[in-house]
Amino acid sequence: MNEPIGIFDSGIGGLTVVKQLTKLLPNENYIYFGDTARVPYGTRSNRLIKQYAFEDTAFLQQFKIKLLVVACNTVSAVAVDLLESSIDIPLSGVIMPGVETAIETTKNSKIGIIGTTATVTSGAYEERIKSINPDITVYGQACPMLVHLVEEGWIDEEITRLTITKYLEPLLEKSIDTIILGCTHFPVVSELIQDVVGSSITLIDSGKETAKKVKQILDKSGLNVNDKSEGNFSFYVSDIPDKFDEVGTLFLGRPVVQATHVDFDNFLMEQGEKIYEPLRRNS
Amino acid sequence: MNEPIGIFDSGIGGLTVVKQLTKLLPNENYIYFGDTARVPYGTRSNRLIKQYAFEDTAFLQQFKIKLLVVACNTVSAVAVDLLESSIDIPLSGVIMPGVETAIETTKNSKIGIIGTTATVTSGAYEERIKSINPDITVYGQACPMLVHLVEEGWIDEEITRLTITKYLEPLLEKSIDTIILGCTHFPVVSELIQDVVGSSITLIDSGKETAKKVKQILDKSGLNVNDKSEGNFSFYVSDIPDKFDEVGTLFLGRPVVQATHVDFDNFLMEQGEKIYEPLRRNS
Repeated sequence: MNEPIGIFDSGIGGLTVVKQLTKLLPNENYIYFGDTARVPYGTRSNRLIKQYAFEDTAFLQQFKIKLLVVACNTVSAVAVDLLESSIDIPLSGVIMPGVETAIETTKNSKIGIIGTTATVTSGAYEERIKSINPDITVYGQACPMLVHLVEEGWIDEEITRLTITKYLEPLLEKSIDTIILGCTHFPVVSELIQDVVGSSITLIDSGKETAKKVKQILDKSGLNVNDKSEGNFSFYVSDIPDKFDEVGTLFLGRPVVQATHVDFDNFLMEQGEKIYEPLRRNS
Repeated sequence: MNEPIGIFDSGIGGLTVVKQLTKLLPNENYIYFGDTARVPYGTRSNRLIKQYAFEDTAFLQQFKIKLLVVACNTVSAVAVDLLESSIDIPLSGVIMPGVETAIETTKNSKIGIIGTTATVTSGAYEERIKSINPDITVYGQACPMLVHLVEEGWIDEEITRLTITKYLEPLLEKSIDTIILGCTHFPVVSELIQDVVGSSITLIDSGKETAKKVKQILDKSGLNVNDKSEGNFSFYVSDIPDKFDEVGTLFLGRPVVQATHVDFDNFLMEQGEKIYEPLRRNS
C-alpha cells in the first residue's frame, strides 16, 4: 500500500502534524494541502468551514490517498463527522487522539483546552471528553493571538510570554492538571507555555497523538507502506504567503521542501457541484 | 446624484474610513462591502490581490455606485492603478490622500510608513512620495501583529504598547517627524501610538485624508448628493466573523448597523469570466 497519506489544513500549521507523522512513520508517502489563500478558517462561520473541508478533501482525493488526516483543529471540530460519513477511506482528525490521551493523563479530572476561538466555542473537545467520561470538567480558553505570534515568528519574545500568561491565568485558577494544545500552531511555543504553566501541568500535543492514531489505523487495516525507503513528501498550497519558508520551517522542524502553488479556484470550477453533494445531503 | 458611494475592504477595517466619510459627508449614501470570508489580503500574493479587487468592485457596481473608495491599503498599494484604468467612475484609494498630506506635513523630509507586510513591502507609499518629492526619505515598517491586536480588541493593553514600541523603535531611530498610518486598523490605536512616539511626531490618518479627497472629487465633478437628509449606509460582508459587532463598533465609532451576509462564491459564479477581462488585458 504505497499510496500516500493525505493531510490538509487551513494553512501551514498542519506541518506540525506532518513533523510528528514523519517521525513515527518515516517510510510513508505524504501529500499535504494547505489552503493558504483562505486561511484562517478559525474565524469563519460553520457553514463555510464545512464547505472548505469538502473542497480540500476533493483536492487530496485526486492523488488516490489511502488515509486522510484533517490536521486542522477548526475543521476537526466542525466537520470531521460529516466528512467521515461521506468518504470511503479511513480518516483521523486531530481532536479525538488528543482527547483520549488527555483523559488517560489527568489525575484530578480537570482538563484545559486552548485553541482558536472557533475550536473552543464549538465545544467539540468538551463534548467528546464528556461522552467518554462525564465526570471530567473541561475549561476552554481561546488564544487567537497566539496563532498570529507564532506566524510572526515571535517565539522567544516577552510579548508572547505576556500573551500566554494573559490567556492561561483563568485556566490556572481552575487547578487543571492537563492542557490540550488544540491548535496546530501551539507545539511551536510549547516550551514557553510549559514555562508559564509550570511543570506540574502536562501538555498534550495533538499532532503527536494523531500520529500514534494514524499508526494504529494503518497497522489494524494492513494499509502500511511496503517500501522500506524514506517516503516522499509533496506539498501543495493555494497561495504562497508571506514568510512562507521561515514559518514553514518552524512548523515542520526542518527546511520546507518546494511547495507547489495550486490554482484552487480553477480546480473548484472544474470539479463543479459534485463535491458539495454530501454536504447538501447532510445539512 | 443620490447614487451611493461604494467602499470595499478586505474586511471590516475599512469602517474607519466610513467613519471619516460620514463625518465629513453625512448626507451621502454609502454601500460597504467587507470581504470577511477572505480577509486578510495583506498576506496574499499580488496576483490574488488583483483578482479580489476586481471581484469586490464588480459586487459594488451592481448598486450603480457613483464613486468607488478602495478602503483597503493592500489593494490600494497593489491594484488601484489597474482598477482606475478599468472602470468608468471616479475612484479613490487610501494611499495618495495620506501621501499628499504627509508631504505637506513633514519639516525634516523624513516620513515613516506603518502598515501590513504587503503594503510596506510593495513600496507603494515610497514610490508615490518619491514621485512627488524625491528629496524625502521614506522608512517603512510592517506591523502585522498590530492588526490582530486591534481585531482582538486589545486596545489599552501593555502587550499592545510593547508591540507598538517593538515595531516603531527602528523608525524613531531614523528621526522621522511624520508617520502615515498605512492600515485601516491603526486609527483605532492612534492614541497609544501617539503616546509611544511622543507629541513631536505627527500621525497621518489615511481615512481622514481619503474623506477630504472624496469631498474634493464630488465637489469638482458635481456628483454631490442632492438630498439634505442623513444618508443611508448599507453594509455587506462575505462572512459574519467572530467578534463582528464588537470590533465593527470599534472601527465605525458607533454601533454597527445590521450587515447582510452575501454568498460571494455564488455571486462570482453568476458573474462568470467577464469581471476578469480587464485583469487579463493588463497583465
